[in-house]
Amino acid sequence: MSASTTRNDRDQLLSDLCPELCKKIPEHAIITNPEELSAYECDAFTTMRQQPLLTVLPETIEQVQHVMRCCFTLEIPVVARGAGTGLTAGSMPVENGVLLAMTKFDQIHEIDAANRTALVDPGVRNLAISEATAPYNLYFAPDPSSQLACSVGGNVAENAGGVHCLKYGLTVHNVLELEIITADGTMITLGSAALDSAGYDLTALMCGSEGLLGIVVKVRVKLLPKPDCASVLLAAFATIEDAGTAIAAIIGAGLIPAGLEMIDQTGICAIEELMHAGYPTDAAAVIICELDGGKEEVADELSSVIDILKRFNASAIEIAQTPEDSKRIWAARKAAFPALARLAPDNYIMDGTIPRRALAQVWKQINVLADQYNLQVVNVFHAGDGNMHPSILFDSSDDDQHKRAFELGTRILELCIEVGGTISGEHGIGLEKINQMCLQFSEKELTQFHALKQAFDAKTLLNPGKQIPTLARCAEFNAMHVHHGDMPFPHLERF
Amino acid sequence: MSASTTRNDRDQLLSDLCPELCKKIPEHAIITNPEELSAYECDAFTTMRQQPLLTVLPETIEQVQHVMRCCFTLEIPVVARGAGTGLTAGSMPVENGVLLAMTKFDQIHEIDAANRTALVDPGVRNLAISEATAPYNLYFAPDPSSQLACSVGGNVAENAGGVHCLKYGLTVHNVLELEIITADGTMITLGSAALDSAGYDLTALMCGSEGLLGIVVKVRVKLLPKPDCASVLLAAFATIEDAGTAIAAIIGAGLIPAGLEMIDQTGICAIEELMHAGYPTDAAAVIICELDGGKEEVADELSSVIDILKRFNASAIEIAQTPEDSKRIWAARKAAFPALARLAPDNYIMDGTIPRRALAQVWKQINVLADQYNLQVVNVFHAGDGNMHPSILFDSSDDDQHKRAFELGTRILELCIEVGGTISGEHGIGLEKINQMCLQFSEKELTQFHALKQAFDAKTLLNPGKQIPTLARCAEFNAMHVHHGDMPFPHLERF
Repeated sequence: MSASTTRNDRDQLLSDLCPELCKKIPEHAIITNPEELSAYECDAFTTMRQQPLLTVLPETIEQVQHVMRCCFTLEIPVVARGAGTGLTAGSMPVENGVLLAMTKFDQIHEIDAANRTALVDPGVRNLAISEATAPYNLYFAPDPSSQLACSVGGNVAENAGGVHCLKYGLTVHNVLELEIITADGTMITLGSAALDSAGYDLTALMCGSEGLLGIVVKVRVKLLPKPDCASVLLAAFATIEDAGTAIAAIIGAGLIPAGLEMIDQTGICAIEELMHAGYPTDAAAVIICELDGGKEEVADELSSVIDILKRFNASAIEIAQTPEDSKRIWAARKAAFPALARLAPDNYIMDGTIPRRALAQVWKQINVLADQYNLQVVNVFHAGDGNMHPSILFDSSDDDQHKRAFELGTRILELCIEVGGTISGEHGIGLEKINQMCLQFSEKELTQFHALKQAFDAKTLLNPGKQIPTLARCAEFNAMHVHHGDMPFPHLERF
Repeated sequence: MSASTTRNDRDQLLSDLCPELCKKIPEHAIITNPEELSAYECDAFTTMRQQPLLTVLPETIEQVQHVMRCCFTLEIPVVARGAGTGLTAGSMPVENGVLLAMTKFDQIHEIDAANRTALVDPGVRNLAISEATAPYNLYFAPDPSSQLACSVGGNVAENAGGVHCLKYGLTVHNVLELEIITADGTMITLGSAALDSAGYDLTALMCGSEGLLGIVVKVRVKLLPKPDCASVLLAAFATIEDAGTAIAAIIGAGLIPAGLEMIDQTGICAIEELMHAGYPTDAAAVIICELDGGKEEVADELSSVIDILKRFNASAIEIAQTPEDSKRIWAARKAAFPALARLAPDNYIMDGTIPRRALAQVWKQINVLADQYNLQVVNVFHAGDGNMHPSILFDSSDDDQHKRAFELGTRILELCIEVGGTISGEHGIGLEKINQMCLQFSEKELTQFHALKQAFDAKTLLNPGKQIPTLARCAEFNAMHVHHGDMPFPHLERF
């Protein structure tokens, strides 16, 4: 509890808010006990923690509206939370605010196979949509590694991607319609059940807005027909350069794989130790490539990809022969971050996205930086779309290591900006990267972001302090920042 | 000239504005002569016309900023215009405002084949991008029928689609980064050269915002690899029902054609008369279907589509044997609206989009309505994505016909809303459908739109009066509206 909020302040807020909430929300759905609240103090970015004033678990849209109206009147902040699998502290509570846990919104209301859409609650798990629509031979394309657990409301908030977003897009490309509750408790519908909608594209705006503009209470998603055929391969390389160039050559050849991933040796070994998936632990890097579509198309593309991989000296290529083989290769990739968690007490996962052709150059530069900071960085990339997830291994109990890890993280994000990329691909900004937003955007651009926020949430009650830094914060950060306006990597070409 | 603006007002505005503009803009780039201004008084929705105060043709971004700064200071409205091919009066000037014609922004600055992007000026013609990138075997996917003439800035403003957006998306899905000038002359960059970007998704928000939020001065578009192979077929049907059901069956079978179009008999005959493309004039409807991808995939899908077409009693199927055949079939389709223009003095083209499975039902209902209003309606649909373009033929010199045509138009749009669809697919709202926005959106949703507009353009200088109706306008329109809150089509299922 910080100096700014005393126990008395907290008690006062609770005694103002609880009687109001209780008018429409059952007591069991309101948690105020600090012990129980500890379950809600962070998302998967566990470095940052904060207990909320209280947690509400609403069961109906009317209850969500009631929470919002009470908080609007009393000017109490609200942070919404889905499954809590976020990686940037986006749903970390605020001290004097309500945490709105959307867990109980877990129904699939409608599967419309003819229109290829489904209407679902925000608390429905990502994978549950594909499971429920499988009998219609349909699926929901975004597939973050956490898809077993993460919920679609969180996917919307962070504009989640996944290993297949190279071909099938991010969440924003797979959502048609949203029902949201605004800061003052109003329900509005954004988008439509048709493939386009009139007016400003607030559906797209809501995707990736991290709970700062409204609370999502219903989602109509697009579904895709399952491809007839999918083929997965795993290729090993003796050097990082060969793997990087092979990736560029696959994209350059006009192929659009369903997924195109790259993992370095430390990543391979960590995954293999946990998953026993048959990854080649002696390789400097592996590429996983999935091709999908019609049977002959896949066969054709597979042979083109294999030609390219061989041209760039792939030392071994395993082509999955059965669906079980494919599952094994993908399950191991999706377990990369749990596997890395075993290598060091702490693991800082970055999420920069760069123009694809800068990949090999940035990869090498990351390794140079890692040496400079004397830290180990493991590289696991959605290489096909330029979304890199370098993971910095460190021990947060060692203050100096902790400091170096976060400095290195900043340097890696600067590098992404420098080559024309961005500091987030699919994890969002949250609190984790809020300072780096000051590097990515100009004061003018941030001012426009704030004006837009004001248009949705004039009292700044929705997830305050996240995603968009104040100009004051940026002034302070930029003044502390060592580069004094010089390009940190002047020798790199801007892609 | 309306009663509200006298010649004196106009002279006063000109004498305030022109000396300011001339400080940074050459005289030849400022048009004030009413005769020359007449070229700018409407877009392709020629029913609505208005001369601007003056037209500026800037040549540099700095000149655009100067225009915006002058107008911001003097509180003079600005309407931006691309090639003027819009169909909803979206770029119709306002009487006391500047028309900003972006024609001279016509350079392609960069083609980055490795990243599959191009950086272009907003005045670059849509088709010119695909022509310039053809040597790299790449193309720009959105392809509105006007693609020979329309410019990419206008495509962004209206979120243009085209016959291939079923598979490849609308403009919003094919734009990565925008540079815009805001109402006060500030330049900001939205999005990034990478496949995602941090912060609110203002790039998506800008797409389809019809010049109400900013002036686009640079566009980075995504390019797609040209498919190895494309196959086009033209199928004839003796009844509308069979054609409609065949479309639903193709989509229901999990096929995603690159294009899937439907034209009724009047449309077929009009097109054939103009284009001599070999369309079957005795058919009640034709379907055009394009499949693209790998050679075998296309062959497989083609055979599935032919099976379905035959199952629903296609009376004849022509499969294009050469690229010239394909071009002939498509060129005729893209000439549909010029062809219809020959059938009647006036032609009111609608742009409703509905959930796909309502297609046959809505088509039949449109014909019932056409009979009721004693007007001929020609149906030309992007059937695959539910985007319908019924065209109402009429003679605007006959006051009664004119009135009936626009009433029928409103009824058709109501029908689209009623089945869960939307009043625009790809043409936008402009001034044409601004009243129907009152039917599509609730007061709460419109209020949110206005708040957002305020965040970008607090003085309401950018394209005022378009796209988002005032609440006062809606109150008036809804009061005049005959349905008194009843569903106009209570017997129709909401899809």
